[in-house]
Amino acid sequence: MTYTLILLRHGQSEWNEKNLFTGWVDVALTEKGREEATRGGHLLTEAGILPDIVYTSRQKRAIITANLALEAADRSWIDVKRNWRLNERHYGALQGKDKAQTLAEFGEEQFMEWRRSYDTPPPALEDSSEYSQVGDPRYADLGEDVPRTECLKDVLDRFLPYWESDITVDIRAGKTVLIAAHGNSLRALVKHLDGISDKDIAALNIPTGIPLVYELDDDLTPVKAGGTYLDADAAAASIEAVANQGKH
Amino acid sequence: MTYTLILLRHGQSEWNEKNLFTGWVDVALTEKGREEATRGGHLLTEAGILPDIVYTSRQKRAIITANLALEAADRSWIDVKRNWRLNERHYGALQGKDKAQTLAEFGEEQFMEWRRSYDTPPPALEDSSEYSQVGDPRYADLGEDVPRTECLKDVLDRFLPYWESDITVDIRAGKTVLIAAHGNSLRALVKHLDGISDKDIAALNIPTGIPLVYELDDDLTPVKAGGTYLDADAAAASIEAVANQGKH
Repeated sequence: MTYTLILLRHGQSEWNEKNLFTGWVDVALTEKGREEATRGGHLLTEAGILPDIVYTSRQKRAIITANLALEAADRSWIDVKRNWRLNERHYGALQGKDKAQTLAEFGEEQFMEWRRSYDTPPPALEDSSEYSQVGDPRYADLGEDVPRTECLKDVLDRFLPYWESDITVDIRAGKTVLIAAHGNSLRALVKHLDGISDKDIAALNIPTGIPLVYELDDDLTPVKAGGTYLDADAAAASIEAVANQGKH
Repeated sequence: MTYTLILLRHGQSEWNEKNLFTGWVDVALTEKGREEATRGGHLLTEAGILPDIVYTSRQKRAIITANLALEAADRSWIDVKRNWRLNERHYGALQGKDKAQTLAEFGEEQFMEWRRSYDTPPPALEDSSEYSQVGDPRYADLGEDVPRTECLKDVLDRFLPYWESDITVDIRAGKTVLIAAHGNSLRALVKHLDGISDKDIAALNIPTGIPLVYELDDDLTPVKAGGTYLDADAAAASIEAVANQGKH
C-alpha cells in the first residue's frame, strides 16, 4: 500500500504581481491567483484525488488557495490544520523590496545568492519595519521568537519537526493529505522527500496552483522521484516562467 | 473577566431560496448568502470583535459562511475545528420537500409540530433516499449511526457533549470563539445558554448572517440573556421574516 500526499503552491498574490519580495508579509491573492486556486481544485476532482485533511500556513494567500481549491473539489468539509512552520521563507530586509530593483542595485551574484543559496539568509529585517512580524497576532505563540530572516535551510529546520509530529502521523493513518503552502516551504519539503542536495535544490522551482501529487511508500519515500503534476504541460511552462522571475 | 462567544448562522442557501427542507443535505450558498457572510465579517471588524478560533459543522453552507466572514474580517489564519455535532437538525423524510407544499398537504398543526416541537421528530428518512447521509464520506466516522431524523432535543443531546469536551475548553482558555452553524444547532445552544424552556424555544428564531455575541461569565452564563446582535435592526427584521417562512 502507498500513501498519497498533495502539494499545492498558492496562486498569484498582489506582490507576486508587483514583483516584490513577500516572505512573511500577509499579502492577498489577486483575481488571477484565486482562479488558479479554483482550477487546482478542479484538477484534483478530474484526477479523482480527494484530500481527507488540509494543512496550511498562517498566511492568507495559502489559506484562501486551500479554501477555493477545496470548494471547487467539494471537499470544504475536511479537517484543517494551520501552522506557521508551513509559512513562506522569511525574506529578511528584502521583504517589500522590488525584485528587479534589488537585482539592479546589488548585482546578479548577490541577488541569486539571496534567492537561491541554501544556507545564507538575507540581512535581518529591523523590528521597527512596517514589514516586521513582531507583535503580529498570527504569531502570538512565537512571541519574540518570530524570524527576522531565513535561508532555505532555516525553513527546512523549522518545517521538519511539524512534518514529523503531525503531518506524517496523518499520512501514516492512511489519510490523503493536502498541503497548501509556499514556494520555499514546499521546496524544503521536496528537498527532504526526494533527497535533493543542498546545491541542486537551487534549480528547483514549484509552479503555482498546480497540484503536485506524491505517492509515498511505507517509509515515506516517493515511489516516483519528483512526484507528478496534475497538469504536466502547464507545470513545465510555469517552472520556466518562475525561473526567469526578477530577470526582466 | 468575561468570555466572548460569537454565533453566526449561515447565509441564504440554494434550498432556502427554493423554500425546501434541507437538514443534512449539503446545499451551497446562493450569491445572496455569500454576501450575507461577507457582511457578517465586516460587522465583526466594525465591532472590533476578533475570533481566535472558528468551529463549523461539516456542511458547506456554514463552512463557506465562516470562510467568507473570516476573510472579510482578515482572520482567515485562525484555527479551525469542524464537527458533525454542529450540523443542522436532520429533517428526516421532509428533507428535499417543499415547505409550502408540505404545509398544504399536512395542515398547519402537523407542519408546525414538525418544525417547532421540541421532542417530536419528523418521520425517518429511508436509507435508499437520494437525500440520505448513509455512506456520505463527510460522516465516515459515524458509519451506520448517521441520523435518519432529529427533533430539536436530539440536536441538543448530540451538540452538548462536543460543547463540553471542546468548545468550552477554548472559551475558558480565554479564546474568542466563533461558531458558524445552522438555525437549529444554534437554537439548541441558545436554549442551553439562556435556559429557555422546551416550550418557549419554539418561538425563537435566529437570523442569518448577523453575528450574535454573548459575553459569558465564569460559569458560562450569559451576562445579558439573549446576547447582542451586531446589527440589531437587521436582526429584528430578519427574525420576523423567518417566523413567517413557509406561510406564503
